[in-house]
Amino acid sequence: MFNVQNQTIFFKQKPHIIGNYAIVGPKEGLGSLKNYFDYIMKDDLYGEKTYEKAERKMVEQAVIGAVTKANLTPKDLQLFVSGDLLNQIVTSSFAARAFDVPYVGLFGACSTMAESLAIGASLVNAGYFDNVACATASHFSTAERQFRYPLELGNQRPPTSQWTVTGAGCSILSSKGNGPIITSATFGKVTDFGINDVNNMGSVMAPGCASTMISHFKDTNTKPDDYDLIVTGDLGKLGSEILIDLLEDHGYKLGTNYNDCGQIIFNGKQSVLMGGSGCGCSASVLNSYILEKVRKKEYNKVLFVATGALLSSTSTQQGDTIPGIAHAVVIESYEEEKSPKKEKKGSKN
Amino acid sequence: MFNVQNQTIFFKQKPHIIGNYAIVGPKEGLGSLKNYFDYIMKDDLYGEKTYEKAERKMVEQAVIGAVTKANLTPKDLQLFVSGDLLNQIVTSSFAARAFDVPYVGLFGACSTMAESLAIGASLVNAGYFDNVACATASHFSTAERQFRYPLELGNQRPPTSQWTVTGAGCSILSSKGNGPIITSATFGKVTDFGINDVNNMGSVMAPGCASTMISHFKDTNTKPDDYDLIVTGDLGKLGSEILIDLLEDHGYKLGTNYNDCGQIIFNGKQSVLMGGSGCGCSASVLNSYILEKVRKKEYNKVLFVATGALLSSTSTQQGDTIPGIAHAVVIESYEEEKSPKKEKKGSKN
Repeated sequence: MFNVQNQTIFFKQKPHIIGNYAIVGPKEGLGSLKNYFDYIMKDDLYGEKTYEKAERKMVEQAVIGAVTKANLTPKDLQLFVSGDLLNQIVTSSFAARAFDVPYVGLFGACSTMAESLAIGASLVNAGYFDNVACATASHFSTAERQFRYPLELGNQRPPTSQWTVTGAGCSILSSKGNGPIITSATFGKVTDFGINDVNNMGSVMAPGCASTMISHFKDTNTKPDDYDLIVTGDLGKLGSEILIDLLEDHGYKLGTNYNDCGQIIFNGKQSVLMGGSGCGCSASVLNSYILEKVRKKEYNKVLFVATGALLSSTSTQQGDTIPGIAHAVVIESYEEEKSPKKEKKGSKN
Repeated sequence: MFNVQNQTIFFKQKPHIIGNYAIVGPKEGLGSLKNYFDYIMKDDLYGEKTYEKAERKMVEQAVIGAVTKANLTPKDLQLFVSGDLLNQIVTSSFAARAFDVPYVGLFGACSTMAESLAIGASLVNAGYFDNVACATASHFSTAERQFRYPLELGNQRPPTSQWTVTGAGCSILSSKGNGPIITSATFGKVTDFGINDVNNMGSVMAPGCASTMISHFKDTNTKPDDYDLIVTGDLGKLGSEILIDLLEDHGYKLGTNYNDCGQIIFNGKQSVLMGGSGCGCSASVLNSYILEKVRKKEYNKVLFVATGALLSSTSTQQGDTIPGIAHAVVIESYEEEKSPKKEKKGSKN
C-alpha cells in the first residue's frame, strides 16, 4: 500500500544531544509527566499580553534553558533550527530575533521536533556546524483560535478531537559530548487518505506515520522489537490504533514498547478526548521524560516519530482533504568507545 | 553595527544544478525577462478554481519541468525541499503530495529559494542524497489577500510598496553533472530595525541582507568585485538603495555588478512601484535568466541573496515590528577538471 524508498540517512559522527529543556503550561503540569518538565508555567499568558507572545517567550526560554544545561551560552550556537504551527512560523522567527544566531525556519506542523532534529543532525554530522539548537512549540490558545474557532465561542469538541499542548522543547546538538546520540533520520513523504475532518487529526496523521516507519524498518533492517521505545508524536488514542492496524497489515507488530506522546502527556482524568497534539506535545515529552530515560540508560534505543497534519484554514475552506507527514530519528544512549591501548594515568607524553 | 560570525559553509563536492524551470503569471510575462521563462500562464487562475490551487499547480509544474530538463523523472528524486508564503506553507505541502518523494518543508518567506538551495546543497554535498528538488512560489492574489486586504477592495498602494510576483521556480541539485555548481552557502540571522510598515518590505529586508552579505564577504575573504553578479532577492528600488548605503558604511562598495530580482523582473513601464517581491520573484529570475547566463558562462560567479520579511498578519495586528532575514548561495559555472594524464582518444583499455 505504501510506496517506500530509501528515506533514511545515517550519522557516523553520531551528533550528541548535549542539552535539552521542556517548558509546559499549567494543564500539562498536572499531567502524568509533571515531574519531568524543566518548567511549568503558572498561567498560559506567561506575563505577556497575548498568547502568541507567550508562545514566543516559551521558545526563547527553552533555547536558553537547553543551552545552559549544555554548559554553553547562546553565543556558542552556530545555528538555530525551528518551526511551529502559527502562520508564517512567527513564534520561531521572532524567538530567533532574540538570539543573534543564524536561523533556518522549518514548517512540518506537529512533525517539527523530528524534522528539526533530522536537519540539525544532518548538518552537525556533515561537519558544517558544531552546536545547533533544534526547537519547536505550540500553545493551545494560539492554535485553537487560528485553526478552529474563537476561544470565546466555547465550542463543544467532538469525540475524535485532540487537545493542543501548550509547551516548547529544545535540544542542543553537538559534534562532541557524552550522548544521547542521534544515529539516523528518516524523512517522510506526504500522505493523504482523503480525510477532511479538522477534528480528527489522528486519522489524518496515522498513514504518513505508518509510511515513514515502514521505510525506516526496511532501510535500517530492523523490526519494532529492536527498540526499547517507539514513540509517535501526537497521534492520540484513535490515531495510534489506526497506526497499529496499518503496520500489522504490512507485517510489523507494535508491542508494549510502543507509545504515543499525545497519550502520555496528560493523565487519564484530564478531559482531553483523544489526547495531546501540537508541535509542543512531542517536543516537551522528548526533551524531558524520554531523553532523561535515555541518559539513565533505561532506554538504549528510541525511535522518535513526530507526526504532522499539513492543513491551513484556507485549504480546509476550499474543500481540500488533509495531508499528513511524519519524520523519524533514532536516539541512542552513548557508551564512550574505549581506546584499544589505554595509556596509564599520569604517564608523560 | 552588524554582529556577524562564521555563517558560511563550503561545498567541496560542488552540488550541480542539473535542471531548472521557471513559470510566471501573465503580468510577469510582459516584463523584461519574458524571453527567459519556461512558461508564461495566460491567466493567473491557471485553470483552477482558486488562486491558492493555481499557486500549488505552478509548483507542481516547476518541479516536473525542472526534473524533465534534468533528464530525470520525479521518481528519481530522493528529497523535495520547498516552502512558500501561505499559512502553513500549503502550496508546498500540497504540491509534495503529488510527487511521492520525501519532503522537507521550510519557511523563510521570500528568502526561501536561497534557503532551500542552501539546505539542499548541504544534504547533497554531505552524500546523503543524489537528486534533490528545491522549489518555491508566490502568487500575487494569494499573498495580497492573506497579508493585506481583500482583492475586491481595490486599495490604493503606497509608494513604498512592492508587487508580489506570480511565479514559481525549481532547481534540481545533483551529486553529479556539468554545473552550474553551488560552492558555498551563508545562513542569515534575523534582523529587526524596528520598522512596522507592512507596505515597506524593502526597508525591512535590507538590514538582514546587509548582515548576511557582510558575513559572506568576511567568511569567504572576498569583496563585491570578485563576483560577476551579486543579486538580491526582492529588495526593490528602495531596499536596494538602503542595502548599498548599509554596505558602504561597512566598507563594501557595490558596483554595476549588483542587481535585484525585484527590479529586473518587470519592465520600467509596468506600474509596480518599488518592484517585484514574493518567494516567486527570486525563484523565477534565478531559475531562468540567471542560471541561463551561468550555463553560457556569461556569469562565472554569482552571489544569490534571497531576502525575506518574517511577519504574519497577527504579529502586525499585535503591534510587533517586522524582522527580516537573508540567506545566500554562491553559484559558479563549471569547468570539468582535466585529468593530469589524458588518455588518447580511441585507446583501448
